[in-house]
Amino acid sequence: MTNTQVTLVQIDNYGPWTVTPEPRREVDLQTLQSRLYADLSQLFGNRDGYVFFTRFDNMIAVTNGLDRDAHALIQESVGNRYPVTVSLGFGVDPSPVTALGDATAPLQDAGSAQDATRQEILSGDILGDEERTGDDVQIAHFDVVDATGKYTDELNAFDSFIHIEQGYAELMRYMRTAHDSLSFFVGGDNVIAVCPALSTAEYEDAIETVHDRVDVELQVGVGRARTAQSAGMNAKHALETCRDHGTAVEFY
Amino acid sequence: MTNTQVTLVQIDNYGPWTVTPEPRREVDLQTLQSRLYADLSQLFGNRDGYVFFTRFDNMIAVTNGLDRDAHALIQESVGNRYPVTVSLGFGVDPSPVTALGDATAPLQDAGSAQDATRQEILSGDILGDEERTGDDVQIAHFDVVDATGKYTDELNAFDSFIHIEQGYAELMRYMRTAHDSLSFFVGGDNVIAVCPALSTAEYEDAIETVHDRVDVELQVGVGRARTAQSAGMNAKHALETCRDHGTAVEFY
Amino acid sequence: MTNTQVTLVQIDNYGPWTVTPEPRREVDLQTLQSRLYADLSQLFGNRDGYVFFTRFDNMIAVTNGLDRDAHALIQESVGNRYPVTVSLGFGVDPSPVTALGDATAPLQDAGSAQDATRQEILSGDILGDEERTGDDVQIAHFDVVDATGKYTDELNAFDSFIHIEQGYAELMRYMRTAHDSLSFFVGGDNVIAVCPALSTAEYEDAIETVHDRVDVELQVGVGRARTAQSAGMNAKHALETCRDHGTAVEFY
Amino acid sequence: MTNTQVTLVQIDNYGPWTVTPEPRREVDLQTLQSRLYADLSQLFGNRDGYVFFTRFDNMIAVTNGLDRDAHALIQESVGNRYPVTVSLGFGVDPSPVTALGDATAPLQDAGSAQDATRQEILSGDILGDEERTGDDVQIAHFDVVDATGKYTDELNAFDSFIHIEQGYAELMRYMRTAHDSLSFFVGGDNVIAVCPALSTAEYEDAIETVHDRVDVELQVGVGRARTAQSAGMNAKHALETCRDHGTAVEFY
Repeated sequence: MTNTQVTLVQIDNYGPWTVTPEPRREVDLQTLQSRLYADLSQLFGNRDGYVFFTRFDNMIAVTNGLDRDAHALIQESVGNRYPVTVSLGFGVDPSPVTALGDATAPLQDAGSAQDATRQEILSGDILGDEERTGDDVQIAHFDVVDATGKYTDELNAFDSFIHIEQGYAELMRYMRTAHDSLSFFVGGDNVIAVCPALSTAEYEDAIETVHDRVDVELQVGVGRARTAQSAGMNAKHALETCRDHGTAVEFY
Repeated sequence: MTNTQVTLVQIDNYGPWTVTPEPRREVDLQTLQSRLYADLSQLFGNRDGYVFFTRFDNMIAVTNGLDRDAHALIQESVGNRYPVTVSLGFGVDPSPVTALGDATAPLQDAGSAQDATRQEILSGDILGDEERTGDDVQIAHFDVVDATGKYTDELNAFDSFIHIEQGYAELMRYMRTAHDSLSFFVGGDNVIAVCPALSTAEYEDAIETVHDRVDVELQVGVGRARTAQSAGMNAKHALETCRDHGTAVEFY
Repeated sequence: MTNTQVTLVQIDNYGPWTVTPEPRREVDLQTLQSRLYADLSQLFGNRDGYVFFTRFDNMIAVTNGLDRDAHALIQESVGNRYPVTVSLGFGVDPSPVTALGDATAPLQDAGSAQDATRQEILSGDILGDEERTGDDVQIAHFDVVDATGKYTDELNAFDSFIHIEQGYAELMRYMRTAHDSLSFFVGGDNVIAVCPALSTAEYEDAIETVHDRVDVELQVGVGRARTAQSAGMNAKHALETCRDHGTAVEFY
Repeated sequence: MTNTQVTLVQIDNYGPWTVTPEPRREVDLQTLQSRLYADLSQLFGNRDGYVFFTRFDNMIAVTNGLDRDAHALIQESVGNRYPVTVSLGFGVDPSPVTALGDATAPLQDAGSAQDATRQEILSGDILGDEERTGDDVQIAHFDVVDATGKYTDELNAFDSFIHIEQGYAELMRYMRTAHDSLSFFVGGDNVIAVCPALSTAEYEDAIETVHDRVDVELQVGVGRARTAQSAGMNAKHALETCRDHGTAVEFY
């Protein structure tokens, strides 16, 4: 069984801020969003967590090992460096989807994402040190088989992207519905999924489904560990094995 | 008629670099990618261009007003600050899709995106100053009607994202196929499309199609100008009019 | 004759902000300051200007070629991305010191640097396009002769730094008093000075004075151009000539 | 007694890199240096350390609590994100100056700072967990009494800076010679010193000396703790007491 701790990072009242007093320059918003994500990547990453950009105004992190104080410090550090603040909700469950639901609830209970008075919420449940085990987190790292040869070097850059995107859209929905997993596009042709304790057969099933529906061929490496960082690195090594051996699913 | 200058930014040999000598830490890759995008946002933005993160390893920019020297300086500046280099291809056409095809060709002709010896290509056609007009660029800024009320404040953060993502996936494909446009998710519930000279009816058609197929309700503001920056800002103001008046399509 | 346009960038009410409601974490302040400087480096640099970190809360830029609108955009861009705002004053004079005095005055006239109500001042004189010439800016790039061999590879890192710092402190004071120049430490063993139209003899005099007083041996390359960027690059090339030929002063 | 662990961060072969194949644009070098420093600030800061920019190509950190693995990860993270690499040397001693000497030695022994083949050295002594105590680090945070009223709001921005700089230059030399301390300018009118177990009288002596020699009036808050982060925050609170009570030296 896995036990995933998930954190929701939500920029407070961001929509209204972007158009007040009038619409802000898009290039500055893009810079702000992507740098905030880069910083969170380091802030969570330095504590063995993973964060995904998702919608940028709502980011999702896997945070096994980060206690409430670590979350408070990250929240404070963002407030010290950005013109916006963030709220953080966290939850724990064998199912990543349920954990995220638990992480979302305290933010929604405290008010709307566009409520100017709802600021810097910090709330939820933490997986205590004594409950943690060495295989709490399962990470699957997918990519597209020969994306460069099939798409990048052959089609225009947008049509390549459409193929990658279609594969991702199908995978994210299927993994969510059939396997209680959270899948995130992380650039290139890579998707990282946070999963419960799925088996080889279940990954094969997901890959086959995506192939049948949108004709995109995926492969996946899977890692399991105490933290997102370790599980993710194991998954990358397993994916290298797929590449070397031409296999579709490999566990570390 | 529009006349869009499009630039493809491709990180040279990025895939192999990320796993050499062994897989690099994901949080560092995420940091690298999002910061590179933030920097390009400023480098193009300071010259009135727009750049979209797309796949992060392949980014697409609208660059009316940037000549070859400006591109060279951006390329040099990336090389001075990052462990990776970028190739830049550019093209011009009334159809953004064709312009992107023209921008992609010189990179593909020079070698594979994963060819270690193909570095810092800088090639393509520029729209000369004498050919430029005040309405070369048409930008459409879409968002989801009441995304916060319907999704963000109601569903868990991933299920909200699935809805937004589905709307985007459908819109990007339809705008590409039916209207020769390039649409990019830019965070939150926002999509920015680079379009030829489309009419109100054509935007209404796109919105209706997305609504019919995936039940996501969009609105759009449209701007037209000499540069991406001005057209995009006009589009934002037009979108504010949609929000104020409850209309689906507004031209600036 | 030179005609230097100088801009003072002052963070509004920064001191009080750093300790409100209680002292903020030093590592976040250091990150904020150095990133703000990096961003200003790009914002001014993309317009052929130079900015120096000086005290970080008060930064000094050479901005020939930047009009009031360019300054306004830089000010807005900082406000869009940081938790603090900046005021900008600008002035023009053959003497860099006088130009800086003119740039400082409108900020001081508008209130204290620690006045919470004095925000985003944007005021001063701009060198109009019609008055600009090809040699308005003179930049001198100094470094320490064989700093690595004499200091970095021989002393502990702080004692090396003391030598470099002493050379800089003496040079900055002497160039200010004797030659109306503004000298800035820019890292390593490098100092960049913004000068009026000084001669070889005057640079020799400055180098000799520093050598006599604190026993640090300097060399300098000098460039002259329409903008800080070009003058500065010329100065670097001239300094390369010093290194190649063992000479103390070279003009480009 | 204190027991300070000091780390020297040296960019490998940086000088030659900045002029190869020809001088790189200064604004890019400034951006690179200040961002690298910002990143190190976070990388060390997230582990309760402090790093000072010093010369930017040679930075000095206080790293009690960081073991060899933490240093290795920081080194790897820099290599993953920058076009340059860093070497790290570390040492431990009651005297910060001696600790820095010990940290410098392994880098100098391995080759010159400008030796292209000397890369990513990682060497030195670590203060083991079992030897650590709650008062290993003493940090003193100095600032100039009423710098804004006396200088910033009265003089031009460079002449203000000269006063601050003179105070710093004198303090750094005196604290080094008389009190075995490492003092670093950190922006504004602030200097942070890493000290052995100095007394109130010794800080009074330093303040008086600076006042006598260069007529700059300082005050100082002093903190002591297990890590640089805690000692530094204590020092800031003590400095607030100086400001509130008009006293010159306060211990937390």
